[in-house]
Amino acid sequence: MSRVGTLIVLLILGSPVPSAADEPALSERYAAVSEQIIEATLERNNAWDRLVELCDDIGHRLSGSESLNQAIAWALAVLERDGHEAVRAEPVQVPRWVRGQESIALVEPRPQALRMLGLGGSVGTPPEGITAEVEVVRNEEELEELGEAARGKIVLFDNPMPPYTETHGTQYGRTVRFRVHGARLAAAHGAVAVLVRSVTDYSLYTAHTGAMKYGDAERRIPAAAIATEDSALIARLRTRGRRVVVTLKMEARDEGMVPSANVVAELRGSALPEEVVVISGHLDSWDVGQGAHDDASGCVMAMEALSVLRRLNLRPKRTIRVVLWTNEENGLGGGRQYAQAHESELPNHVAAIEADTGCFAPQGFSLDHADATQRAIGVAQLTEILKLLAPIEATRAWSGFAGADLIPMGSHGVPRLGLRMDRSTYFRYHHTHADTVEKINPAHLTKNVAAMAVLAYVLADMPGRLGNWAE
Amino acid sequence: MSRVGTLIVLLILGSPVPSAADEPALSERYAAVSEQIIEATLERNNAWDRLVELCDDIGHRLSGSESLNQAIAWALAVLERDGHEAVRAEPVQVPRWVRGQESIALVEPRPQALRMLGLGGSVGTPPEGITAEVEVVRNEEELEELGEAARGKIVLFDNPMPPYTETHGTQYGRTVRFRVHGARLAAAHGAVAVLVRSVTDYSLYTAHTGAMKYGDAERRIPAAAIATEDSALIARLRTRGRRVVVTLKMEARDEGMVPSANVVAELRGSALPEEVVVISGHLDSWDVGQGAHDDASGCVMAMEALSVLRRLNLRPKRTIRVVLWTNEENGLGGGRQYAQAHESELPNHVAAIEADTGCFAPQGFSLDHADATQRAIGVAQLTEILKLLAPIEATRAWSGFAGADLIPMGSHGVPRLGLRMDRSTYFRYHHTHADTVEKINPAHLTKNVAAMAVLAYVLADMPGRLGNWAE
Repeated sequence: MSRVGTLIVLLILGSPVPSAADEPALSERYAAVSEQIIEATLERNNAWDRLVELCDDIGHRLSGSESLNQAIAWALAVLERDGHEAVRAEPVQVPRWVRGQESIALVEPRPQALRMLGLGGSVGTPPEGITAEVEVVRNEEELEELGEAARGKIVLFDNPMPPYTETHGTQYGRTVRFRVHGARLAAAHGAVAVLVRSVTDYSLYTAHTGAMKYGDAERRIPAAAIATEDSALIARLRTRGRRVVVTLKMEARDEGMVPSANVVAELRGSALPEEVVVISGHLDSWDVGQGAHDDASGCVMAMEALSVLRRLNLRPKRTIRVVLWTNEENGLGGGRQYAQAHESELPNHVAAIEADTGCFAPQGFSLDHADATQRAIGVAQLTEILKLLAPIEATRAWSGFAGADLIPMGSHGVPRLGLRMDRSTYFRYHHTHADTVEKINPAHLTKNVAAMAVLAYVLADMPGRLGNWAE
Repeated sequence: MSRVGTLIVLLILGSPVPSAADEPALSERYAAVSEQIIEATLERNNAWDRLVELCDDIGHRLSGSESLNQAIAWALAVLERDGHEAVRAEPVQVPRWVRGQESIALVEPRPQALRMLGLGGSVGTPPEGITAEVEVVRNEEELEELGEAARGKIVLFDNPMPPYTETHGTQYGRTVRFRVHGARLAAAHGAVAVLVRSVTDYSLYTAHTGAMKYGDAERRIPAAAIATEDSALIARLRTRGRRVVVTLKMEARDEGMVPSANVVAELRGSALPEEVVVISGHLDSWDVGQGAHDDASGCVMAMEALSVLRRLNLRPKRTIRVVLWTNEENGLGGGRQYAQAHESELPNHVAAIEADTGCFAPQGFSLDHADATQRAIGVAQLTEILKLLAPIEATRAWSGFAGADLIPMGSHGVPRLGLRMDRSTYFRYHHTHADTVEKINPAHLTKNVAAMAVLAYVLADMPGRLGNWAE
């Protein structure tokens, strides 16, 4: 019977996953140390204070901005102060996109300012703006039906994100494509600008920005998100046969590539220091709000997880490496540069963990792996390991997406893990002015630090490697 | 035994409230007609279409604005078209306050635009704005403690509205005093401007405006609400010892009194036309969003309740009068003018109903009455009547606040009723750009129309008057 076959039988029988011969199960082997880590983290940690420093003293941190440079300097100083090894900035070239002033207003049927955020990477408008009629479509099919009627118009994609449900989770992935590809699609039909309904299932007149791509578009037209309220208003007016005209003004511009950096620090392994477990979040954010959920919190979780282990004098066999990525939001430059610069090390990257789904009550971890067999084995092992997180109710293991910054490592066979949380409200804050630090529950932050510290420690210390059955 | 004594005994014994001798209970007497009204309303009504017209074609409607004039003309036309009697505009003088351009930005510790809405009635700043240090207090006691340190500063009242709970309901009344009185209080300590944390228990970077009063203040200083996020940010920065400086610019100005009107229409009573049941909402709103919940929905409920009865050819003994108040938000001019102009009629106002708590699932009605005995009797009778609303789950009767526009009638002994609903989310939208029509559930609107139509019909047709035991 193949290893996968054995695994399936074991899973069906509900038997515990065996570890290497005569070894105790991982959840037994690491019970004491895991308890120690969780108790120590819950008793005292610096995550909240650091999150407040990053969010309040520096604020949002778009790639190539002065504030991202300040955040990089801040993170290096904190990691040095916490006594970590190999603290360094690893250079990355990143795009510098500047929003500038922007506005949109109804001209017909009546004058009214609307709420917008230009999409990251968009071109601007002429200084006098673009004034044009608006046509509304829900999706690609309706754009096709519109056909020539889109020429010279501003096309609005009014595609509502379905509400979060326990069964289906968030429907971000299904809805975000209009934000990413809308400009290219609309330009192909002769549109002069594109508007998209903000990608959220709940709004209090809050616009949501995010990345867009021109791809192979022949013309680059300005692209902006508008608040769901304004999108719904325009859609209702058009349905009732009203002519809708808006003026869109955007100073947005691309200022080329500029230097930035991933921030790195280590707790060197005691026996196999060349083998690495990465724990990570991304330090850049959009240029609105404070990027608190997305992803200051993930950075602080990784930083503080390492510091908790160091304060406890827990040194696992392998190296745990914090990486705070740059340029997740508009390019993935940090993740790509890391995979390139560390390519020779990647076979020894036994796991890479990212926290990039905000900061809510932790639920467990997802595992992604280029190899289906290793993924299946890995999820079973992860299920066993995560029993250790019962005190913080983060025991679930999923097979699935781990984190955007980890994608470039994926093709090198690195097992990638994502810290998963209750995401029911995440997309209310995502990429908005409302992503601010007081939206975060300090108790959730603490639990996430503990979850990341325990999993990193076990993966860095366990006898085999995640995804390898009996290594 | 007194009538109240009898009532209390009956209530304790759980007996049904008796109606006049040999009369069937009101819930039996009006069972068939109530069922007819509810079924007809649920089957078809124009409330939603009218709400959309008012909100989308006209938008927000501040007292003295051109858009409020448009809304008055629109309401008159709709009421005429629906065939009502005595359709008219009753003149009211209202204040005209103009917001103008406004902005606030952090200067220290770092430049950052903040989100604000000037408070209605506030004076403006000099054109260059007011730049000053900010001191944060939570309440009057902390302002006293601040003492002389407030002089020359901008005082921020950062008093968070406690979250809605089933037990305590909303805590608006407890929190709104800083918005109303903050300027006077801060000016008395030498402050140069006042900021208040927006009065809401949940925000997505949404500022909440509302009325403020200078009262007997010696100096009138500019007053603005800022988003809860910015209020919390400034409070955290001050707690951490950071100096906070902002620049506040407001063009706000008072343009004196201008003509406006209450809109009135009637379904004349068949037997006692001089006796009146008022059903009402207020047509004015703040100058942001669409004033959909507050209170376009209340107006549409009253308008459509009357039209439902007319379409069904149901003419009660007494007159039902729709009143769409002007100037509820910043003066109560409409309510005061009505009580004055109709003073001689008020002894024959058997009840006045207002819907002004947004549009959510109806729960029942509150009753307010200047006379405690009549209030107690009235609540017992109301409990009996509201059995009729079981099909729409609006059967609860409360003793308590009915509606702001009805207050001036209160001292004349008019029984006042407020349509009560699930208010758990109302203060997310209240006085904001997010108070837009798509926040309203059409099914809730329909149920509220039915609730108002049934209660108005019964009060206008029943043998006695609400609050009079065996009349």
